[in-house]
Amino acid sequence: MKAEIITIGDEILIGQTVDTNSAWMANELNIIGVDVLRISSISDKKDEIFKALDNAKLLADIILITGGLGPTDDDITKTSLAEYFKTILVQDKEVLNHIEHFVIKRKSSMNVRNIQQADVPENCKIIKNNLGTAPGMWFEQEGRIIISMPGVPFEMKEMMSAYLLPKLAKNTTNSSIVHKTILTQGCSESKLAEILEKWEYNLPDIISVAYLPTPGLIKLRLTAKGENQNLLENLIDEQIIKLEKVIPELICGYDSDRLEEVLGKLLIKHDKTLSTAESCTGGNIAHLLTSIPGSSAYFKGGIIAYSNEIKENILSVSKSNLDDYGAVSKQVVEEMAEEVRKLYSTDFAIATSGIAGPTGGSEDKPVGTTWIAVSNKSKVISKKFIFGNHRGRNINYASLTAINMLRKLILGK
Amino acid sequence: MKAEIITIGDEILIGQTVDTNSAWMANELNIIGVDVLRISSISDKKDEIFKALDNAKLLADIILITGGLGPTDDDITKTSLAEYFKTILVQDKEVLNHIEHFVIKRKSSMNVRNIQQADVPENCKIIKNNLGTAPGMWFEQEGRIIISMPGVPFEMKEMMSAYLLPKLAKNTTNSSIVHKTILTQGCSESKLAEILEKWEYNLPDIISVAYLPTPGLIKLRLTAKGENQNLLENLIDEQIIKLEKVIPELICGYDSDRLEEVLGKLLIKHDKTLSTAESCTGGNIAHLLTSIPGSSAYFKGGIIAYSNEIKENILSVSKSNLDDYGAVSKQVVEEMAEEVRKLYSTDFAIATSGIAGPTGGSEDKPVGTTWIAVSNKSKVISKKFIFGNHRGRNINYASLTAINMLRKLILGK
Repeated sequence: MKAEIITIGDEILIGQTVDTNSAWMANELNIIGVDVLRISSISDKKDEIFKALDNAKLLADIILITGGLGPTDDDITKTSLAEYFKTILVQDKEVLNHIEHFVIKRKSSMNVRNIQQADVPENCKIIKNNLGTAPGMWFEQEGRIIISMPGVPFEMKEMMSAYLLPKLAKNTTNSSIVHKTILTQGCSESKLAEILEKWEYNLPDIISVAYLPTPGLIKLRLTAKGENQNLLENLIDEQIIKLEKVIPELICGYDSDRLEEVLGKLLIKHDKTLSTAESCTGGNIAHLLTSIPGSSAYFKGGIIAYSNEIKENILSVSKSNLDDYGAVSKQVVEEMAEEVRKLYSTDFAIATSGIAGPTGGSEDKPVGTTWIAVSNKSKVISKKFIFGNHRGRNINYASLTAINMLRKLILGK
Repeated sequence: MKAEIITIGDEILIGQTVDTNSAWMANELNIIGVDVLRISSISDKKDEIFKALDNAKLLADIILITGGLGPTDDDITKTSLAEYFKTILVQDKEVLNHIEHFVIKRKSSMNVRNIQQADVPENCKIIKNNLGTAPGMWFEQEGRIIISMPGVPFEMKEMMSAYLLPKLAKNTTNSSIVHKTILTQGCSESKLAEILEKWEYNLPDIISVAYLPTPGLIKLRLTAKGENQNLLENLIDEQIIKLEKVIPELICGYDSDRLEEVLGKLLIKHDKTLSTAESCTGGNIAHLLTSIPGSSAYFKGGIIAYSNEIKENILSVSKSNLDDYGAVSKQVVEEMAEEVRKLYSTDFAIATSGIAGPTGGSEDKPVGTTWIAVSNKSKVISKKFIFGNHRGRNINYASLTAINMLRKLILGK
C-alpha cells in the first residue's frame, strides 16, 4: 500500500514548528508495510487542501492528514473535507458526550466552540480521540482511504497506535520491509563508499543500502523488501556479517544506538569508571556522556582545562611539555589523560587538546588539528587528527572520535 | 515571491530523519519576505523528482531543493536535474580545486567519487559549499529560480546565510518586512502571554508578534510589513522600548543573540574571567560557553563533579554539608561555586547540582529539582528550581538559567 502524509498548518510553512509528526507516522507506517511516497506541508487554506488531496490521489491508496481540527477560526480542515467530499456536517452525539466529559474533567465548562467540535461530515467514520476533543475522521472514496487527525502530537500518536495502525496493518498486502542500520565512525562518506564498493555490488537485488551522514558518524541503512519477513531478516543479517568482515574497525553501533550509549553499556558490563580532561572539546564529551540516563554509574566527572594555566595548576601537566611542545601535542594530551585518571581515581580517562577555530591555527598546526588520548592503568594511546575549519563540527568530531577511541581500547581493538 | 521547498531522501519518508532543514529555511525565507506555500518530501527517485518539480512550477517562483547530492550511488539529485533541464554534466575546475583543498586538509586523498562531485550541469550557476564538497546549483527557467543544496544541515545553512538569502532578498518585491526578536528567560509561554496581554493589545495593526519557545528560552518575534523600511523599524523599536519597561527582568538578548554569547561579551567588556562547577548539567554549561569563538579569553575551565566523591576530593565540598543536606542543596551548590572560583582563580563562577532524571527523585526532592549558584569575590547567590521530568530538557533549562543568573549578577540586577 502507498501512502501520502499531508500536514496542514501555517506554523510549519513559516518555520515556527518543525514537523515531527510526519517522521513518526512514516516510521510506524513503514513498519506495517505501508510505503510513504510523499510528505507535504500546506497552509490552512481550502483551495490548498483541495489541491493537495487531488495530487495525493494520483499516487496514494491511503492519505493521512494532520492538523487544522482545533476549535479556533484558523482551523478549517473539517469544513474543507466536508465540502471536498460533497457532504454536510452533522452533530455526533457520542462525540458530543466525549467532549462534555473531557471539558468537565478539566474543571471547565462547554462553550459554543466545544459544541461545534461535535459536528462531523455525514459520510465519515469517527475515530475516537481519547486524549483530546477533536475527533479523527475516516473517509473512503474510490477505493482510497482518507484519514484526518489532530496535529497535536500525542493525540495523533494515540489515535494511530490504538486504532489506525492495527486497522491499516490488516488492510496492507503481505509484503514486508526490513531495515537495519549500522553506525560507522572514523571514515568519510566517499571513502567508505569506495571501501564498500565490492560489498555493495554483491548485495542481493532486494537489499538496498543508503549512506546517512550524521555529525561525526556515518550510518549505513540496509533495506530489504519482499514477502517473507524472516527470510528478509536473515538475508540482511548475512550481509551485515559480511560487512563486519570488511570494516570491523569502523563499525561502532547498530540501529538506534548512540556512541556514548554504546560506551556506557561497555563500562557497565566491565564495571569500570571513566573521567575526562577536555580542552578543545570544552565539556562536550562530558555532556554527551551525561546525556545518557544512569551515566553516574560509570562517569565520575572531569576537568575542563581550557587555559594552559589550568592544565598546569589543576591537571599538573608539566610546564616543560607545555613550553616545548605546546598545548596541542602528544605529550600534553597524554599527560592530561594520565593525570585526570589518577586525580579522579577512575579506570579509564579521555583527554582532548586541539584548535577548534575559527582562529588560533598556525602553519604546522592548522585549525582543526586535534590530539586525543585515552588511557587505562597499563597504557595511554594518543592520536592526531585534522578535522575541518568549522568550530562546532570540530568539537563534535573530536568528541565522538574520542569516545570511539575509548570504546576500542576497552574492546582491545 | 512564492517558494516551494522540496526535500529529497528516503530517510525522511521512512521516518528515520526528522526534516528540520525545511523549518529553518522557511523561517529564513519568511524573514526576507518570501512566502513558502508548500514543503514536500520525496524519495531519491528520478521520476519522483521530475513530478515534484512539475508540481512546484505550478505555484512557486523559487524552488529550493535539498538532499541527494552526496558522493554515493543513492544520491541522484544532480544527474536528475541535469536530465530535467536537458543538459549534460561537465567538470568544474573551481569546484574540483575546492574539493581537492578540502580533501587534502583532511590528510585524505582524492578518489573517483570526490572527482565526480566536481561534475555539474552545464547550464547552472555554482553555489560554493564552504563547509563541504558537494556544490550548490542555481538554475533559471521560464523566470523561475530552482536551487539545489546539500541536505547536510550546516552546509545548507551556510550556503543560505552566506549567499542565497542576501541574493534572494534583492529579488523580492519592494514591500518591506522588518523582524526583530527579543529573547526572554525565566517565564513560561502562557505566563508570558498573560503578562504581555495589554502590551500586545495596544500594538499597531501592522505589527504582529509570535511566541517562539526554544529549549530554556522563549523568543518574541515582532514582524512589521509595509512600504517604508525605516518607518517600520522605528515603529518596532518603539514597541520594544515599551516591552523593555514591562518585562525588564525577563529580557536577556535580541535577534540572533545566544545567551552564552551575551554573557561572553559582558565578561570581555568588564575584562573578567569565569569557571564552572557542574554536577547535574554534566559539562553542558562549559560546552555552551566554549561553543562561542574566542571564549578562551574569559573561560578558564571548570570541574565536572558528577559523583559526591569528586565534589568532596576535588572541589573540597565539606563532607558534613554533603551528609547533612545532600548534594542537591543550597549549602553544597554554594560551596561548589566558591571552591571552583578560588581553585581556578577566576572572577566569577557558576555551579549546578540537581536531579536531571529520569530516576533519582524523592518525596522532598522530585526529579527536576535543581540548585544553581553564581558567585564573585564579594557574594554568592543561589536559587532552587524545579524543572520538568525530561532529562535532556532539565539539563538545558538548568544550563541556560545558570548562565542568565550570572549575566544578572554582573549587571547588578
